[in-house]
Amino acid sequence: MPRTGIVLFAHGARDPGWAGPLRAIAARIREASPGLRVELAFLEFMAPSLADAVAAMTTDGFDRITLVPLFLAQGGHLKKDLPVLLADIRARHPGVDIRVTPAIGDAPELVSAIAQWALRQHGDA
Amino acid sequence: MPRTGIVLFAHGARDPGWAGPLRAIAARIREASPGLRVELAFLEFMAPSLADAVAAMTTDGFDRITLVPLFLAQGGHLKKDLPVLLADIRARHPGVDIRVTPAIGDAPELVSAIAQWALRQHGDA
Repeated sequence: MPRTGIVLFAHGARDPGWAGPLRAIAARIREASPGLRVELAFLEFMAPSLADAVAAMTTDGFDRITLVPLFLAQGGHLKKDLPVLLADIRARHPGVDIRVTPAIGDAPELVSAIAQWALRQHGDA
Repeated sequence: MPRTGIVLFAHGARDPGWAGPLRAIAARIREASPGLRVELAFLEFMAPSLADAVAAMTTDGFDRITLVPLFLAQGGHLKKDLPVLLADIRARHPGVDIRVTPAIGDAPELVSAIAQWALRQHGDA
């Protein structure tokens, strides 16, 4: 039985408050699925790095990780930076199955949710 | 009767494909509200700029704009860059009422939608 968890991978920012909504997403996942390990990891400016987050879960015996890029769209960070990071991480942890999901804006249900919310904001404004 | 529209304000990226999901959000809003003017604008790398998008709508007679920042969270771009841009835009177009919505991650319903989607991705992976 594999031990599975989620890593929410976000860009990071200099402003420490930037991570608040990301932590809220992680907390919401844990509420919906108590006991599921959910970690945040950042590309830059914030800790932990993706490598450190995966290493910590590997040490704790996790062998399948769903990596959810919390990016609106696929640009250089997901197309170029992430594959380089992942190649290194997979080489260090060959026993860990890491599966990368689409970006937020590649999920039709999230495109709809954001569009509906924007429209409500316009109506309520 | 004010002419109202929406500007979706996003970061922009060097990769031209990055804007695809943003265009999908704009298209989804237009589908849900036919006839509503919805424009994209970018902080950097892509055109039009926020100033150009607002100027074009002002020229077309729009006098109320809902500015929706398509950013996951509030960092320096929304806390520092956007207010500077807006001060300049408002000084140029004093008759236009521009209202800024929260960021995506500040909307509890979108935090929930993203969390549920991430959890489904994990389950389906």
